[in-house]
Amino acid sequence: MAASEESLRKALAEKLSAVEAHGNTVRALKAAKASKPEIDAAIEALNNLKLEKSSIEKQLQAAVGVGDGDGVLSRETFRQAAVNTLERRLFYIPSFKIYRGVAGLYDYGPPGCAVKSNVLAFWRQHFVLEENMLEVDCPCVTPEVVLKASGHVEKFTDLMVKDEKTGTCYRADHLLKDFCNEKLQKDLTISAEKAAELKHVLATLDDLSPEALGSKIKEYGITAPDTKNPLSDPYPFNLMFQTSIGPSGLSPGYMRPETAQGIFVNFKDLYYYNGNKLPFAAAQIGQAFRNEISPRQGLLRVREFTLAEIEHFVDPEDKSHPKYSEVADLEFLMFPRDEQMSGQSAKKICLGDAVSKGIVNNETLGYFIGRVFLFLTRLGIDKDRLRFRQHLANEMAHYAADCWDAEIEGSYGWIECVGIADRSAYDLCAHSEKSGVPLVAAEKFSEPREVEKLVIAPVKKELGLAFKGNQKNVVEALEAMDEKEALEMKASLESKGEVEFYVCTLGENVPIKKNMVSISKEKKKEHQRVFTPSVIEPSFGIGRIIYCLFEHSFYTRPSKAGDEQLNVFRFPPLVAPIKCTVFPLVQNQQYEDVAKVISKSLTAAGISHKIDITGTSIGKRYARTDELGVPFAVTVDSTEDVTIRERDSKLQVRVSVEEAAAVVKSVTDGQRTWEDVWEKFPHHSSGSADD
Amino acid sequence: MAASEESLRKALAEKLSAVEAHGNTVRALKAAKASKPEIDAAIEALNNLKLEKSSIEKQLQAAVGVGDGDGVLSRETFRQAAVNTLERRLFYIPSFKIYRGVAGLYDYGPPGCAVKSNVLAFWRQHFVLEENMLEVDCPCVTPEVVLKASGHVEKFTDLMVKDEKTGTCYRADHLLKDFCNEKLQKDLTISAEKAAELKHVLATLDDLSPEALGSKIKEYGITAPDTKNPLSDPYPFNLMFQTSIGPSGLSPGYMRPETAQGIFVNFKDLYYYNGNKLPFAAAQIGQAFRNEISPRQGLLRVREFTLAEIEHFVDPEDKSHPKYSEVADLEFLMFPRDEQMSGQSAKKICLGDAVSKGIVNNETLGYFIGRVFLFLTRLGIDKDRLRFRQHLANEMAHYAADCWDAEIEGSYGWIECVGIADRSAYDLCAHSEKSGVPLVAAEKFSEPREVEKLVIAPVKKELGLAFKGNQKNVVEALEAMDEKEALEMKASLESKGEVEFYVCTLGENVPIKKNMVSISKEKKKEHQRVFTPSVIEPSFGIGRIIYCLFEHSFYTRPSKAGDEQLNVFRFPPLVAPIKCTVFPLVQNQQYEDVAKVISKSLTAAGISHKIDITGTSIGKRYARTDELGVPFAVTVDSTEDVTIRERDSKLQVRVSVEEAAAVVKSVTDGQRTWEDVWEKFPHHSSGSADD
Repeated sequence: MAASEESLRKALAEKLSAVEAHGNTVRALKAAKASKPEIDAAIEALNNLKLEKSSIEKQLQAAVGVGDGDGVLSRETFRQAAVNTLERRLFYIPSFKIYRGVAGLYDYGPPGCAVKSNVLAFWRQHFVLEENMLEVDCPCVTPEVVLKASGHVEKFTDLMVKDEKTGTCYRADHLLKDFCNEKLQKDLTISAEKAAELKHVLATLDDLSPEALGSKIKEYGITAPDTKNPLSDPYPFNLMFQTSIGPSGLSPGYMRPETAQGIFVNFKDLYYYNGNKLPFAAAQIGQAFRNEISPRQGLLRVREFTLAEIEHFVDPEDKSHPKYSEVADLEFLMFPRDEQMSGQSAKKICLGDAVSKGIVNNETLGYFIGRVFLFLTRLGIDKDRLRFRQHLANEMAHYAADCWDAEIEGSYGWIECVGIADRSAYDLCAHSEKSGVPLVAAEKFSEPREVEKLVIAPVKKELGLAFKGNQKNVVEALEAMDEKEALEMKASLESKGEVEFYVCTLGENVPIKKNMVSISKEKKKEHQRVFTPSVIEPSFGIGRIIYCLFEHSFYTRPSKAGDEQLNVFRFPPLVAPIKCTVFPLVQNQQYEDVAKVISKSLTAAGISHKIDITGTSIGKRYARTDELGVPFAVTVDSTEDVTIRERDSKLQVRVSVEEAAAVVKSVTDGQRTWEDVWEKFPHHSSGSADD
Repeated sequence: MAASEESLRKALAEKLSAVEAHGNTVRALKAAKASKPEIDAAIEALNNLKLEKSSIEKQLQAAVGVGDGDGVLSRETFRQAAVNTLERRLFYIPSFKIYRGVAGLYDYGPPGCAVKSNVLAFWRQHFVLEENMLEVDCPCVTPEVVLKASGHVEKFTDLMVKDEKTGTCYRADHLLKDFCNEKLQKDLTISAEKAAELKHVLATLDDLSPEALGSKIKEYGITAPDTKNPLSDPYPFNLMFQTSIGPSGLSPGYMRPETAQGIFVNFKDLYYYNGNKLPFAAAQIGQAFRNEISPRQGLLRVREFTLAEIEHFVDPEDKSHPKYSEVADLEFLMFPRDEQMSGQSAKKICLGDAVSKGIVNNETLGYFIGRVFLFLTRLGIDKDRLRFRQHLANEMAHYAADCWDAEIEGSYGWIECVGIADRSAYDLCAHSEKSGVPLVAAEKFSEPREVEKLVIAPVKKELGLAFKGNQKNVVEALEAMDEKEALEMKASLESKGEVEFYVCTLGENVPIKKNMVSISKEKKKEHQRVFTPSVIEPSFGIGRIIYCLFEHSFYTRPSKAGDEQLNVFRFPPLVAPIKCTVFPLVQNQQYEDVAKVISKSLTAAGISHKIDITGTSIGKRYARTDELGVPFAVTVDSTEDVTIRERDSKLQVRVSVEEAAAVVKSVTDGQRTWEDVWEKFPHHSSGSADD
């Protein structure tokens, strides 16, 4: 596609200059009063050139994804239909609407709230319960010291530019991104070279320094979108909501930007709770906050969101996983680093192969990738629009061993919904250092082991005589040498008797003599190995997953009369906000009583349902519940047996009043499938019921 | 008790002066060199007086609740034992401990987090699902305009004093309260009058103005507790955590102090979602924040907490409830206003009587009081230490129709855990007014009704001639008259032809003549009645309920050897953090395999459990799980059948390996009781297993 786009841009540029040249020819012929047949022939040639130009333009439009009825436009039409339904049925709505809302804040209304609570309950079942994780629940208000240690106070920033006249703020990278995309999609006259340049900017957007970003904005003449005023230079804006803890105003705090830090600072207690054994995982579900500069894309980029995070602590020397074999045979779309670099696309790979070939760094990371795949697809995410993309080297933090994002494709493109990172020992080390509390684990040896240890013994008396007040700095620098440095010094001292040694706290070289330090290797018995565990972190953006689930579940179908499109969410029973509706077919006391009996049994069985005794036509009532994604409807049309209708097939079976709740429970709990039910019970064939 | 305390204080004062007087007598006799028998007799009399004084002191100590081994001290011993266990087993711990913590912030560790999630799941089942409530989920970050409308920006404050030298902040009422309590409990020499005064201060603490509080603090000479420095005058401190939304710094926001406002601002959408019908209830579970001045009392007063709130919207003219009869027969401790005012204590009342006698304002309020009672007692709250206390007139907001608190008694005394208030139309009116969006409901009449309406028609031409530029103010003031004012004016105009009328926007009286306004009553046909619904709000402090549940569930029992006290939490299975443990009796591959089979069945049945294959003695393993409140333990001592032990009775039955998981599921789900199990299965009588 990229190659064809490039050649199309070249062809278009050639055709444009041909049209221009030929237009001049025609004008010249007319000016020279050439013969009519001569002029007519030239005009016909010009028209042919114009037709060819239009055809190339259309091809290019298709290649860059702008066209009628497909590509970006149809994505937007789809999104509009889905979002209209979602907002109208209160799946979610902008918060504080009566006060004209606040960008980036959304409420979940009743059906959205139920979907969210189902997703979280399944997350708890699938991860916490099945893996025996230690779940914790920590506050959102976090003192500054914790977020200084984690690096958020210094580095959790986005680059911002201001409209120099109005002061309105924008994300600098977004403006540049929008400019490049707009240019690429709408300006078909740019050269292939220019297109390549813009694409390069888009690909390296995350790596640009404030200066580079600023100079690109200047170079392209980008101005404030609303006013066309000039923009300030980009500068970093910290994305944490700041506040103050207690009445003194002296204790700054922040609303946590992630839940993970609450787990890290509790590592010592959790390790003890787990019987001082590794590996173990802790988990947390909770709110997190990011004060986005200019939120957009609805539920995908918000200022407050629910995260579900797992921190799996493991011995860095043994990242195997006891249950790895349970996921090793899974096959799904993966997008390793090499495929991305060489311009290929994601492909189906067997997870076990990816681990054994070293594409995925280790078994535990692979295990979680597999479990995340199972989690998302069981929720109802389409496996063909789900891929696991490996971070490129420049995307990963320097300490990370490997990192994969579960990305889900929707109307906004591929969206990162789960990050699965091997963060090595970074977080525990950072908090150990800042707090002074060692956050380490120990492996007890069954038998003591003999190890060779480097011993550096500065001779303080000699150093004091030589360096007086600087003695302490020299001693500390000598003791801080790593094994390689120390052994080199030892060799030099033995051969030369003196060596120049750089003391960084003094900022200068000092001469070290043989009698000033003794360096040796000694054998010692050790009973245990003490180390900082590595952490493997699967982190779930619950709101993003839910939004993608909404898009993957939404479809429309014509009404029976064919006069309108009806909206349906094909949620699996596991996540459906309501599992079942109960309708008397017509308004009638007897039917209502039966409906109430069934409703009571459903409540007792813990099946969330809704009873609708309005006189609306049954077709309209089905349409209303299809729009909420309710998988089953019980319709009471007799006092002895009733029908159960399945949402997507619209098929109906007849069951007795007594059995109705139990049958609904069994299909919603997943004890049996609708196909089983369809096979077992008599079919109800009244076509008149549905619409 | 209060009466006996008063007479004891008087008796003690008398005895003290008698001792002093008699001491003087003895000294005088000695000085006068009286005879030995005379002096001895006087000393004996003095000693008798001292003994009597001590005896009265002891009685008084008992009366004010300070003594050895009972009252306040034993409460503190109990609390210490419970809290030690809770913190050691990570039910909860101070947050950010490695950084020396932050007052008023706590983490729930694994068992506490499981208890919390069980309590919330049951809350959802008991209220949202069974009552078909509309659950919503709104952000914590809230723009200022919303909390201005609700009154929080202006009024959500506590009075604070500062140490004038160090700047340390204290809650003014807490200092005064501590002073009074300390004086009453520890200074036995104060007069009965003084004691009565201090008690009056305690009783009216919540009503004191900043000035009154300040003058009491000065009068009693109260200083900063840590430094004894003088204190500033009290001034209000707003308890909301403030922040700023977006990068501009121009949009102040707060972390919500309650979840209710998110529901009120959505009333219009929720009413529509409910088919424009009343009554309906909306519910929300979520974090709320209060920046307490100086938090204490552990989990009971914290800076961040989980609230579960219900807003039940109802027609103010019809507060009946369709399911009221289901709770009307409940009987429990209630503490109505009158009993509090007349110094009586809470007493058992039948809820139905309380409603029919008008003690509880209306059926819907009564229904929720009953449902809250059922909720709390099913969680495991002791019904004899749970009371519903009605707010006194001075405690309630002016708009509230009635308000009851569910209070639970624990080591800190009676603690408010649920508030159930009829807030009338206050909140919806406040947001209607501020936002300009009408938040109202309508009752459609089946037939149009004829109503008499007051019509005030200012005659603008005449008013313009008379008042020129002030015409608009006069017109508005005339139109704003209520019915009574307007009819009075009509009568005066008819009798006198002219009347003086105060226009508040002008700040003066103007003369109104008969030809300037026409006032009449007209008959109109109305098709509906439009009104602002009343709201009845049950609001649950989840952390407080959980802490009280911990205290009500905690007890100790001697180990079998009798050498130590073992800790137990008697959680019902519904809230127990783990439902079951699985132990091989001894370390043995066969038993371990059986244990794993049972564990797998439990996981499949969704029963949270723990498997413990350490070689620790079975008694120790039981003790460990009793301390977590695990209700059942499966011990594998054969490959065919196993024992199931119940935590509190320590009784054991034998069941087959195949049945084990199903039996545990049935008792934890509440399908059958332990008594049923004990009857059905053979008893296991090995006394040696337990310790």
